Amino acid sequence: MKHVTPPTSLDALFRPRSVAILGASDDATRISGRPVRYLIEGDFKGSIFPVNPNRETVQGLKAYKSLADVPETPDVALLAVPAALTEQAVRECVEKGVKGAVIFSAGYAESGEDGLAIQARIADIARAGGLRLLGPNCLGIFNPQIGFYGTFTQSLDKEMPFPGPLGIISQSGAYGSHIAYLARKRGIGINYWITTGNEADVDVAESLEWMATQPDIKVIMAYVEGVRDGARFRRALGLARENGKPIVMMKVGRSEIGARAASSHTASLAGSNAIYDALFRQYGVHRATTTEEQIDVAYACARGIFPKGDKLGVVTLSGGAGVLISDAAERNGLDVAPMPEAAQKILKDLLPFATVVNPVDTTAQALNDMNLLAKNIEVILEQGGYDALIGFFTTVPNTRTLSKPLRDAIAKGCANFPDRLIALQMIADPEVVKDYEQAGFLVFEDSDRAVAALAALTRFGRSLSRPSGEAHIAPAAPIGKSALSERAAKDLLGKAGITFLDERLATDAASAGAAANAIGYPVVLKIVSPDVEHKTEIGGVLVGVADRKAVEAGYATLIERAAKHRPDARIEGVLVAPMAKKGVEVIVGVSRDPVFGPAVMFGLGGVHVEVLKDVTFRLAPFGRDEAMRMIDEIRGRALLSGVRGAPASDVDALADLLVRISEFAAAHADDIETVDLNPVIAWPKGEGAVALDALVVPRRDLH
Amino acid sequence: MKHVTPPTSLDALFRPRSVAILGASDDATRISGRPVRYLIEGDFKGSIFPVNPNRETVQGLKAYKSLADVPETPDVALLAVPAALTEQAVRECVEKGVKGAVIFSAGYAESGEDGLAIQARIADIARAGGLRLLGPNCLGIFNPQIGFYGTFTQSLDKEMPFPGPLGIISQSGAYGSHIAYLARKRGIGINYWITTGNEADVDVAESLEWMATQPDIKVIMAYVEGVRDGARFRRALGLARENGKPIVMMKVGRSEIGARAASSHTASLAGSNAIYDALFRQYGVHRATTTEEQIDVAYACARGIFPKGDKLGVVTLSGGAGVLISDAAERNGLDVAPMPEAAQKILKDLLPFATVVNPVDTTAQALNDMNLLAKNIEVILEQGGYDALIGFFTTVPNTRTLSKPLRDAIAKGCANFPDRLIALQMIADPEVVKDYEQAGFLVFEDSDRAVAALAALTRFGRSLSRPSGEAHIAPAAPIGKSALSERAAKDLLGKAGITFLDERLATDAASAGAAANAIGYPVVLKIVSPDVEHKTEIGGVLVGVADRKAVEAGYATLIERAAKHRPDARIEGVLVAPMAKKGVEVIVGVSRDPVFGPAVMFGLGGVHVEVLKDVTFRLAPFGRDEAMRMIDEIRGRALLSGVRGAPASDVDALADLLVRISEFAAAHADDIETVDLNPVIAWPKGEGAVALDALVVPRRDLH
Repeated sequence: MKHVTPPTSLDALFRPRSVAILGASDDATRISGRPVRYLIEGDFKGSIFPVNPNRETVQGLKAYKSLADVPETPDVALLAVPAALTEQAVRECVEKGVKGAVIFSAGYAESGEDGLAIQARIADIARAGGLRLLGPNCLGIFNPQIGFYGTFTQSLDKEMPFPGPLGIISQSGAYGSHIAYLARKRGIGINYWITTGNEADVDVAESLEWMATQPDIKVIMAYVEGVRDGARFRRALGLARENGKPIVMMKVGRSEIGARAASSHTASLAGSNAIYDALFRQYGVHRATTTEEQIDVAYACARGIFPKGDKLGVVTLSGGAGVLISDAAERNGLDVAPMPEAAQKILKDLLPFATVVNPVDTTAQALNDMNLLAKNIEVILEQGGYDALIGFFTTVPNTRTLSKPLRDAIAKGCANFPDRLIALQMIADPEVVKDYEQAGFLVFEDSDRAVAALAALTRFGRSLSRPSGEAHIAPAAPIGKSALSERAAKDLLGKAGITFLDERLATDAASAGAAANAIGYPVVLKIVSPDVEHKTEIGGVLVGVADRKAVEAGYATLIERAAKHRPDARIEGVLVAPMAKKGVEVIVGVSRDPVFGPAVMFGLGGVHVEVLKDVTFRLAPFGRDEAMRMIDEIRGRALLSGVRGAPASDVDALADLLVRISEFAAAHADDIETVDLNPVIAWPKGEGAVALDALVVPRRDLH
Repeated sequence: MKHVTPPTSLDALFRPRSVAILGASDDATRISGRPVRYLIEGDFKGSIFPVNPNRETVQGLKAYKSLADVPETPDVALLAVPAALTEQAVRECVEKGVKGAVIFSAGYAESGEDGLAIQARIADIARAGGLRLLGPNCLGIFNPQIGFYGTFTQSLDKEMPFPGPLGIISQSGAYGSHIAYLARKRGIGINYWITTGNEADVDVAESLEWMATQPDIKVIMAYVEGVRDGARFRRALGLARENGKPIVMMKVGRSEIGARAASSHTASLAGSNAIYDALFRQYGVHRATTTEEQIDVAYACARGIFPKGDKLGVVTLSGGAGVLISDAAERNGLDVAPMPEAAQKILKDLLPFATVVNPVDTTAQALNDMNLLAKNIEVILEQGGYDALIGFFTTVPNTRTLSKPLRDAIAKGCANFPDRLIALQMIADPEVVKDYEQAGFLVFEDSDRAVAALAALTRFGRSLSRPSGEAHIAPAAPIGKSALSERAAKDLLGKAGITFLDERLATDAASAGAAANAIGYPVVLKIVSPDVEHKTEIGGVLVGVADRKAVEAGYATLIERAAKHRPDARIEGVLVAPMAKKGVEVIVGVSRDPVFGPAVMFGLGGVHVEVLKDVTFRLAPFGRDEAMRMIDEIRGRALLSGVRGAPASDVDALADLLVRISEFAAAHADDIETVDLNPVIAWPKGEGAVALDALVVPRRDLH
């Protein structure tokens, strides 16, 4: 795995060698005093320059009257001044040549039009002066490796974080503080913590991009309400995957109420929830549902072992727990595969009382001879070939006499399998937990949470080893803003590789008849007009037209109906099409997300899409494997495998169609609003898939 | 709510006044010594009689040579003797007149045929002697109110439980110990803890029935692998609901692997997972997915407040947390309804910086004036009318200066609303948590878990106030074991109130023609035979038969086909039926669960049932409300409300049909295997629902 060069303009902000605090207070409990206190207590490896016009010293450090008085140019300035003084402070930073500034104060974009204008002005000043800005309305940054605390978060009051492989990026300062506190409590060290607030300059996408390129980061936690720069965000996710850094994401605003609350909280654009889901699936990001899950998965990621497959071995002292874990494994998509028969015999010889299939229930008897337990675990890992192992030990590790022998026995059993991920359910005091963790195990109080985390790491194992498959699609010649008829849409998409039926445009009754003769009866007749999006609504489609005479009459009928219902519509003629062979109806579409651009939708047709919403999305463009994953993840997938004796459908042809439409959408990212292929008929395996109808709506609000 | 009289024969076992320990050991760390130790340390309010032929004293208590030597008849005997001596010990208990015995040792039904036979013999001896048995292969009982510890569970080694409103019943001793430990850790007191093991006599159903009638129990946690006595279990659930006691259930074996592991763990019959789901929905039992969730919900239940509606108010110091909670509320079916506009204005006047819609984000500013915060909460509860309130306070309650003022402020704000359920998200030391709990709040570290628990209590609020709706259905005259033709099945079900089309049985071509004339054309013709279950497979159905001539010819065709494909089939004739008006196709069925008896299934027809498994079950019989809940919980419910301009279906008629079939199924609980009504056509509202086909399969293994 190669590390891509980071966007170095942020290095000084996140890893400064010197810091000035504008408005530094001598009172360590105040917002403007806390960063000074944290920098001192954190033993910052660099110079600290408090700036305060009214004091000689601040918290024991020499204070300066103004930034100009500071004897060197600090890398970073923390602006702990009221909103009214911020603009002036930013100017001073620019004059001094400071590389990065953190703006704590609120009252900008989040407070209305006026605030937004001031924020924009400050951002302009900074940009012109080569100053990078974090905030405003943020809680700042910290970097415990160098003792840099550019933050006033209250959550560090009692205890400071310690360095480690975790990076945190949060648009919410409070949530960022919350998860940093929980991570520390869970024993996870943090190397960078960044809260982006209103994102006048540095945003979550750029921070992610920077974090994805840091060698001292092994896992990234992020909290996102909305993304401003969709392309950069997407690039950052790709970069993180390429660099082997799992991202554990809390993207809020799934619900309507959530989205409402999110937009009243920051000034960000909330892309639709389904699009975020698509994006995260596409780039192998774990989207956490709960905070606890986010911490669990990040904790497990920090261990750095990602299972190569989904086989889970289970060792338990209690049969009941074995059942519970089996249920959890099924729910989470892990395979509690049985031990090979020969291996079961070995286990049975070791522990006659044990249940040995998998879960392996050693019963509490195993605790009587720890060598047997070790041997047991070794056999399970060796002969069972499990990618991950979970052990259920309830409160046993917390008993004084058994704690160390048990730990040693498990360690001995696992010694030859450093690539297997081992998680233990146990309830014990913090120092006991730490001992077990240092022996190489993940520790969870709850077995369900352990299984969920193992499953997440298994998915990471798959996604991190997946080729990025990114294709650059060159923009195609624009299609203009005018509406397209079905015929024009099919021409355009046909050139892009989409298959349609052998259809012919007829411009009079006679040519319609001739076309039908050539195609063979019965045929379908459809009115063709760029101004009629929904043909059936005006009776613009005739099916099963049986002979030449009927075709000629039908031609006239359609022209009449169009003239009656849409007297102003431009009529290109009538499309004569063969009746399509039966198959499974699916729907394929493209819609343009305002943040992330074109997304391709796939689902089963009819009631499946309308009532059950059984559809899935991916951002365009994507490759064949991704298309296959789309097809496989709809709930009604079995319909494409053949039910009630029907043959399996040509999913290869469907995947191909999805790839082509995604490439078309990417090439027209800027000038297409939506594409509908509805229905697409999937014929049996080997016979292809064909779109019966096509609608292309150009984007009208081009700027 | 009235309390039903408990089955008193278990009182002595669960609340004994005196206990003998057979095989009592002087070594308090051994299995046979631990119960003595626990009884002494737990300060048992009664007499303790250690029985040990080889010692004068046991752990400082006078020991007896044999049970016969004990100077009085103990209520309970704990049999801490090896399996080989158990039968003799049970005989001695019977001779002595002991009321209940607990058998700890394993090696019975769970170990194979021989063990099963011994277990049955022991059970017979006990039953004949009026002795109630718990176990074998169980961890026993405890009752901290009277210091009764009839258990050797290792989980009490460090700390003993304390009394409280929780009752625990577990088929697994290890899991029972595990959740008892977690409950204590969470601050929940336990009044009864019962592990049932192999259930030679006392089973989970009877324990539940007993617990459901104890006035000192407010919430019941249970762990179940399989139920032996389905009727009693069902009755117990009904009793618990009637007595206002919520049940928080861990029923394992959802997955195939889980079910496999469960049956190798105990000797119980695992009813199918969908039937358990149905049963729990029907009786308002909360089925927990994870142990953590089980503890969370039981913890919240112990507070004893069950919201009357689903409106959730949210107060938060952080906008981000507000979004997170809103998402969680939507996921859990709670309604984060906005504050009335007038109330929003009041809040805005109190805290100009706040977001006041709901979630109400007071920002950290609210902490500057606790009176304002109290007022804020009061306004939210009063004007918003929320049934439950959640507050997000992260680590603030753990700060020395703010902890008490914050607690007091919240308490003051809630003072006038004792019926509202208040949950606080906070991370704090255990003693701080306790202080907050004593002020009347539920405390959760994780806001998602808090919301999930509030939602569970809201569902309890609904189900506990629901009339039991239990109807006793008298058994009907048995239908015999012979197969029924469609015609016979329809006759039978028609009498039970199911609607069919106006169909006529014809026994020759001429009468078929006459019947068709009377019905009107076109008609459907179907072969009628008790021996042909699937008519279409032999071409036994003709649809759209257009005139008398075709009907007469059709009659002959069907008779010929039947003769050809099933020469041995008894042919009753041909059914002449009208073509059914179009409507929405649904499927209704009855299947007999070996443990719980007949269950009614409802779902949408065709692909919905076959591919999407979009069906739901209830145990028969049930009333109209339950039938409505069935209809409402299928995923494709919208299809019955009318889509694509179709009219809404007659769900009243469907509900009626479900009630009728459930009553029919209950009346024939013993002699019917399955019923299929497939399809049933639901016509538009007011027009009814009709079953087109009917299949009744009698039970053949009647004993």
